[in-house]
Amino acid sequence: MAKSPVTDPNEDFPRWYQDVLAKAELAEGGPARGTMVIRPYGYAIWERIQAEVDTRIKRAGAENVYFPLLIPESYINREAEHVEGFSPELAVVTVAGGKELAEPLVIRPTSETVFGEHMARWINSYRDLPLRLNQWANVVRWELRPRLFLRTSEFLWQEGHTAHADRADAAAYARRIHLDVYHDFLTKALAIPVFIGRKSAVERFAGAINTFACEGIMRDRKALQLATSHELGQNFARAFDITFTDQADSEQHAWTTSWGASTRMVGGLIMAHGDARGLRVPPAVAPIQAAVVVVREDEESIARAGELVAALSERGVRVKLDAAVHVGFGRRATDWELKGVPLRIDVGPRELKDGNVTLMRRDEGGSRPFAIDQVAAAVPRILEELQSDMLAEATRFRDGSVVDAGTVAEAAEAGKSGVGRIPWALLGTDGERALLDEGVSVRCIQREDGSLPEAEDEPGLVAIVARAY
Amino acid sequence: MAKSPVTDPNEDFPRWYQDVLAKAELAEGGPARGTMVIRPYGYAIWERIQAEVDTRIKRAGAENVYFPLLIPESYINREAEHVEGFSPELAVVTVAGGKELAEPLVIRPTSETVFGEHMARWINSYRDLPLRLNQWANVVRWELRPRLFLRTSEFLWQEGHTAHADRADAAAYARRIHLDVYHDFLTKALAIPVFIGRKSAVERFAGAINTFACEGIMRDRKALQLATSHELGQNFARAFDITFTDQADSEQHAWTTSWGASTRMVGGLIMAHGDARGLRVPPAVAPIQAAVVVVREDEESIARAGELVAALSERGVRVKLDAAVHVGFGRRATDWELKGVPLRIDVGPRELKDGNVTLMRRDEGGSRPFAIDQVAAAVPRILEELQSDMLAEATRFRDGSVVDAGTVAEAAEAGKSGVGRIPWALLGTDGERALLDEGVSVRCIQREDGSLPEAEDEPGLVAIVARAY
Repeated sequence: MAKSPVTDPNEDFPRWYQDVLAKAELAEGGPARGTMVIRPYGYAIWERIQAEVDTRIKRAGAENVYFPLLIPESYINREAEHVEGFSPELAVVTVAGGKELAEPLVIRPTSETVFGEHMARWINSYRDLPLRLNQWANVVRWELRPRLFLRTSEFLWQEGHTAHADRADAAAYARRIHLDVYHDFLTKALAIPVFIGRKSAVERFAGAINTFACEGIMRDRKALQLATSHELGQNFARAFDITFTDQADSEQHAWTTSWGASTRMVGGLIMAHGDARGLRVPPAVAPIQAAVVVVREDEESIARAGELVAALSERGVRVKLDAAVHVGFGRRATDWELKGVPLRIDVGPRELKDGNVTLMRRDEGGSRPFAIDQVAAAVPRILEELQSDMLAEATRFRDGSVVDAGTVAEAAEAGKSGVGRIPWALLGTDGERALLDEGVSVRCIQREDGSLPEAEDEPGLVAIVARAY
Repeated sequence: MAKSPVTDPNEDFPRWYQDVLAKAELAEGGPARGTMVIRPYGYAIWERIQAEVDTRIKRAGAENVYFPLLIPESYINREAEHVEGFSPELAVVTVAGGKELAEPLVIRPTSETVFGEHMARWINSYRDLPLRLNQWANVVRWELRPRLFLRTSEFLWQEGHTAHADRADAAAYARRIHLDVYHDFLTKALAIPVFIGRKSAVERFAGAINTFACEGIMRDRKALQLATSHELGQNFARAFDITFTDQADSEQHAWTTSWGASTRMVGGLIMAHGDARGLRVPPAVAPIQAAVVVVREDEESIARAGELVAALSERGVRVKLDAAVHVGFGRRATDWELKGVPLRIDVGPRELKDGNVTLMRRDEGGSRPFAIDQVAAAVPRILEELQSDMLAEATRFRDGSVVDAGTVAEAAEAGKSGVGRIPWALLGTDGERALLDEGVSVRCIQREDGSLPEAEDEPGLVAIVARAY
């Protein structure tokens, strides 16, 4: 087997990550500090992710909007908790149109404040509720230690903001987004078996009365927060005067939620599935699901490969023909592995003589002959199997990383090299702070069977603890 | 007929435009100067536009990428013509992360300079060509006289940048984008019968050796430039050192193109199709193609309307149920007209008795009874007819606005109140400057039959002249 073009992830995981980004041509640094250039292959993955998430958001009844990039500084100062969280991260425009601005403009770190302002205008009566809005946009938060896709000064994301007539409706909607949008997408499309649960008071989003999170376990056994949804109670509505007249004609503050996920998910995909040969992309979000590779210059191979591409394309498979026979086969094979394309179909004269092509699943690595006249019909099913096998493999890895802890010290130990699980009643906020001193945090609090708790103080909950990105 | 909720466009077109934006809930001003909040209905139209254009861009072989929002000031200063064009429009970040920046960062007015920088890195040999990239993003150009969708300080757009091995390939690609992406989209999806042609040297994009433009004629008979594509020769490649080794192993500068279209197209849609009752949206880009309206509280009507919505939805029609019977029928009918939904299907007890619903085409205005058990099957065909009728109507309007001029004075006269057409040989650059003094500009230069010239100096070309947005 040819030497892998990337560093061994078991030796140096951060360097492996950088190698995959560069060699698979996913992204590179931009000219300004902490910014990122997303290259065609990386962006195509993001487009697939975006489409899958967007479909689920619309199914959950939210509508897309677009708010401006630039926000007057006074808006940001309106919500005290907001200022505290974002002020050191802001990028500020002081000159525009050739003149010093009377009031500086901030590049949105989120659009929260503008959503608040306009939602207040759009909501009058209970008939206007629920109001469910979402935005896909770029945001800027100045980063001193940037890392492509995981932490960049500018990133792409979606942020949802909704207003409801009562607490129960807001709570149900935050839960629905958490489960039907994020959890469903992450497991079914990204094939990442996330831990789901509530955030502890320490880890909760500022201003939220409850935060749900999806936490993935990467191949270095560190946790990555992939999506969050928040119940904001009436805090946000009070700060922005979001009120409505209820059915009894009395004025009430609305109950709001917010929720988001970002290009960080691309980083999660790389780190949850990648291996020593490079990236591995689950078929559901793969820009190229199958590469049909002409092994070497041969008229018959080129003709059969072309037919195969047409047949696969007709079946809705995202397929790419590789007939670059002027490049050695080995180098091309390594490159398709590096790019993590789920399925490779090699078409060469030797196999064709027996009516076969060679099929290679990127997740398993092995190759096997397959009858050329049956392969196109078989591929959609193979891709489905591959998708669920990737989820199963990641689930085994995740579960194998978990150690049940009976004391805070055991939880710290487990969390330093993998994932610890400890009864929340045993850990508590004091134990949580002790873990933080060791670089381990509570990722989420869930039921023992892994499901979502109804309430914070439900008996029998467990805390999932780990180091985190 | 109820009073229209919008100003009569024949009386005050600009005010009519503002009314439509506000009353149809398309967009409103944002908190910072010249910025825009795109509301759900307006954004849904933009999403349809984006999807249609993106499909065509991908079909033309370009791949999407994402470059950073913030660009070091030195990048912008690199291309002299660039600076001249954009400098007064720039928004500049001088503070970030709580500190004064050593080098100010400019918010991209386009990503041209960063494309140039990275394309130079990615291109080595002729094998890397053509390189065809596109980006969907927000850009900022400070506007002193903003007008929603038409001219805003921040707008959403796509910009394509490609590099080719020779002039002919670059020229063919700029032409392909102009015809297969923009012209095809504008006529087939937006139903706007644009004038196509080359820009005169006076109107050409700075740094381009040729600019193709699509010019729509609005209902006030002013022209709106809806999309442009440029051949940049080797100018851009020289400024950014975009070179490649050709097959003879000698180093060459690449030949580049760039091309773009923006949220301005939403403004074009409003002004090309709107009428005294509000917006009219062509089915291809309509977020709601058909509204099924329950006329009044009636169990049978509600049941039948629900079935109809399901049947239409199954046929792929984007349909919405309006069962808000607590609001008067007249008000709801006016609102669907205002929003420009192509087809309205009213379901009420009187018509149901005869097995009918009432069908109303927004473009024609009249209503007619239709058998309820046949309507779902008929709607897709009716929508297709409606789409091509809208194009035909807009074409008649456009053609009716054109006056053939035999002198520069006649062309100026025609251009001031509509569209003038004059032999380009007769007008020339001197005539063009005389027109400009009258507020009339050359929108494009085309063949007499309306098709795209091969060369600037082709005999028999005509100039299309008008006032423009």
